[in-house]
Amino acid sequence: MKQLDYFFNPKSVAIIGASHTPGKLGYVVFTNFLSNISERMVYPINPNTEPILGQKVYKSILQIPSEIDLAVIVIPASFVPKALSECVKKGVKTVIIISGGFSETGEEGKKLEIKLKHIIKGTKVRVMGPNCLGIYDPYTNVDTLFLSRDRLGRPPQGNIGYISQSGSVGSTILDCLAEEQVGISKFVSYENGMDINECDLIEYLVDDKKTKVITVFLEGVKDGKRFIHVAKKSSNKKPIIILKGGKSEAGMKAVVSHTGSLAGSAKIYSSVFKQTNLIEASNWVELFDFAKAFSTQPIPKGNRIAIVTDGGGFGVLATDECERHDLKTPEPSEKLKKIIRENVPAYGSLNNPIDLTGDVTAERYKVVLESCLKSGEYDGIITITLFQVPTLELSVTDVLINLKTFKKPVLCCSAGGEFTKKLSRVLEKNKVPVYLTPRRAVRAMAALVDYGKFLKR
Amino acid sequence: MKQLDYFFNPKSVAIIGASHTPGKLGYVVFTNFLSNISERMVYPINPNTEPILGQKVYKSILQIPSEIDLAVIVIPASFVPKALSECVKKGVKTVIIISGGFSETGEEGKKLEIKLKHIIKGTKVRVMGPNCLGIYDPYTNVDTLFLSRDRLGRPPQGNIGYISQSGSVGSTILDCLAEEQVGISKFVSYENGMDINECDLIEYLVDDKKTKVITVFLEGVKDGKRFIHVAKKSSNKKPIIILKGGKSEAGMKAVVSHTGSLAGSAKIYSSVFKQTNLIEASNWVELFDFAKAFSTQPIPKGNRIAIVTDGGGFGVLATDECERHDLKTPEPSEKLKKIIRENVPAYGSLNNPIDLTGDVTAERYKVVLESCLKSGEYDGIITITLFQVPTLELSVTDVLINLKTFKKPVLCCSAGGEFTKKLSRVLEKNKVPVYLTPRRAVRAMAALVDYGKFLKR
Repeated sequence: MKQLDYFFNPKSVAIIGASHTPGKLGYVVFTNFLSNISERMVYPINPNTEPILGQKVYKSILQIPSEIDLAVIVIPASFVPKALSECVKKGVKTVIIISGGFSETGEEGKKLEIKLKHIIKGTKVRVMGPNCLGIYDPYTNVDTLFLSRDRLGRPPQGNIGYISQSGSVGSTILDCLAEEQVGISKFVSYENGMDINECDLIEYLVDDKKTKVITVFLEGVKDGKRFIHVAKKSSNKKPIIILKGGKSEAGMKAVVSHTGSLAGSAKIYSSVFKQTNLIEASNWVELFDFAKAFSTQPIPKGNRIAIVTDGGGFGVLATDECERHDLKTPEPSEKLKKIIRENVPAYGSLNNPIDLTGDVTAERYKVVLESCLKSGEYDGIITITLFQVPTLELSVTDVLINLKTFKKPVLCCSAGGEFTKKLSRVLEKNKVPVYLTPRRAVRAMAALVDYGKFLKR
Repeated sequence: MKQLDYFFNPKSVAIIGASHTPGKLGYVVFTNFLSNISERMVYPINPNTEPILGQKVYKSILQIPSEIDLAVIVIPASFVPKALSECVKKGVKTVIIISGGFSETGEEGKKLEIKLKHIIKGTKVRVMGPNCLGIYDPYTNVDTLFLSRDRLGRPPQGNIGYISQSGSVGSTILDCLAEEQVGISKFVSYENGMDINECDLIEYLVDDKKTKVITVFLEGVKDGKRFIHVAKKSSNKKPIIILKGGKSEAGMKAVVSHTGSLAGSAKIYSSVFKQTNLIEASNWVELFDFAKAFSTQPIPKGNRIAIVTDGGGFGVLATDECERHDLKTPEPSEKLKKIIRENVPAYGSLNNPIDLTGDVTAERYKVVLESCLKSGEYDGIITITLFQVPTLELSVTDVLINLKTFKKPVLCCSAGGEFTKKLSRVLEKNKVPVYLTPRRAVRAMAALVDYGKFLKR
């Protein structure tokens, strides 16, 4: 068992600062653990020793009779050094410090954080944070997020490993993934990173069997050399998607007051990502768009894309985007055209985008999509399926889901309101990623294609 | 009464191709009109004269005893010339040809469309289409969309006038607007534009009292000179937001097979838009993002923006985007900082972005937002309000809604799942536009600022 495993699957947890006041952070974190108390021992710690939700409360971690794998600290900053010292004394294996008020707040806070570093120096204790959300693991039900489940959804089990230096960006993506029912393997928000940082976490997730793709939201790197080393050796094992916050001058200043990291030049970061074959996302929505694609789709062998649609205007927009992103959209061969023509009325278009028109049926989609995949003329498909057209049967979702057998990436763009979203959920649950705009689908496809090129080299 | 008024508010409508088969286009269009039959006379026309849904059916428009303001044609292309000739003979004022199979399909179709042009030449009849969705007007309940309401939502009454050359892009945005409860004044999808085109429609909406902002999705312009003339004289009367489809080479080819328009060079279009002070959107989501901002917010007098947030990471991303879009994010003055400091704990950040931190309350938002608006130091505010934090009361929506009195634009970015979307709807209904990402909020603010600069000149 690795030391970091104790973060994700502790047998015993102490919540330092557990509270019985709903709304308080120490309440939310404690109740998160209470909801799966059968899986591990949970000890609330609070100077006020009244029982919390029926659980016996301890004044200090030192009073707990058994060993502690994970301590979660949710108390004001000034009390943290003492609590951490006690954790060290107790021989706790891992600590998550949720409390803010450290290097992100200026000189005083920096000093306090250095004090924490001294406390763990030379010990085996590993610390996440401070100023962080910590961990959500849907497999072990470890959940230190102080955002309650009625306000922030939790995604189901899946294969996306997700590291975030920002709690807000991190948790918001979680919430969106939960809504779309896209699964993750592990979520970690480490913020100030006084001990555990992005390098430790990338290394850990590369070896994690449940993780197929790693996504990282980064504000700044503290040890550039190590980062480059870790990124290089990891990126050919698993795709790593990265978003860097604080790329503009003003944004960099904001980073400094947010997590106390040195932001560094935007260009330097981008070129490091390129050199080390990380896949750079340009915004947080894209981070999760890309993750959905890598999580479910095979890596394409080339860049020849067929665009299949029942909405001509959307076909046009997707074609524009393909050209912008160096994806080829070749016309079907005469042979393939012949097959398509037998199934598409004369007013549809056989070029690429292939326009199945506004009276499309599920069967027409099936024949055309399967023909394109079988033909060997395309490395991937973007299908812009607008569910609103009256002739399209709901069984079109089965058609799209069953394309998996062809082992080529198929990304779906479907835009619209309630009806469309309901069908999109069905697709997502069955591992067909759905995007709201042609641009988002095309960018995700381009990311898959780029990673394929890298693997070939 | 203008001739075009008959499209949007006809006293009598003939549906040529009305059908009693659910799912058929002629069924959907006819039943759309049946649902508000008290407002106007509706005549179904079909060679098969059995009553449809209890309505008497006519073989030809010539048999209808009364005058017809609007004829809607939903029959196969080859029958359209005869039907249109009869409309002319009958003295119908306006015609919407929904049928496809014309210039968008190649040489044969082009000839057929020219035939239609000859039929109306020298007459007063005005034609929309062919190959179009036609009209949705929430004030008069005219609705020729063949997409049924259980699949495609209809937005409520509002002030966004919306012209689309593409039915799919057009209707999808409608669906999204409906879901977000953002209101429109009129929607028109004119597609092939054999008679009525974007110029006629822009001129019409500029004079329309219910329309405050005009949005246009364009694939190609047929008469460039007239377009420039109309755009120039219209853009200082109302903001006109425009998205051009088919900007790439491949995209241009796709346009030709979609609506038969000449796509023209991307650069030419962009420079025409700039010259004529149209506001160019870069994708369809942005078209509707910008529309929401212009529909509800005052035009700012400058580019000094305050970013107020309870999620530090999002503040960083918004700051990055502001710099990219030439929006200034100056620090608050010492005086303003003092006011803010009294209400924000020490671990929050007073620079801009102003980070109210993860234990924010509605009251903290109120004091800080109002102080920024009152200070005279900012021309607009982007508030990145993450509703997930446990301490934030739901009454924060009232705080945001009540900022209207300050007469400066306030755009909200809120990202997340179900809980967040519920609160976002409340804001949208009360004319606070909400965006999923900092980038989208910033781009919308930049569009408002740019239009303000233009009005100043």
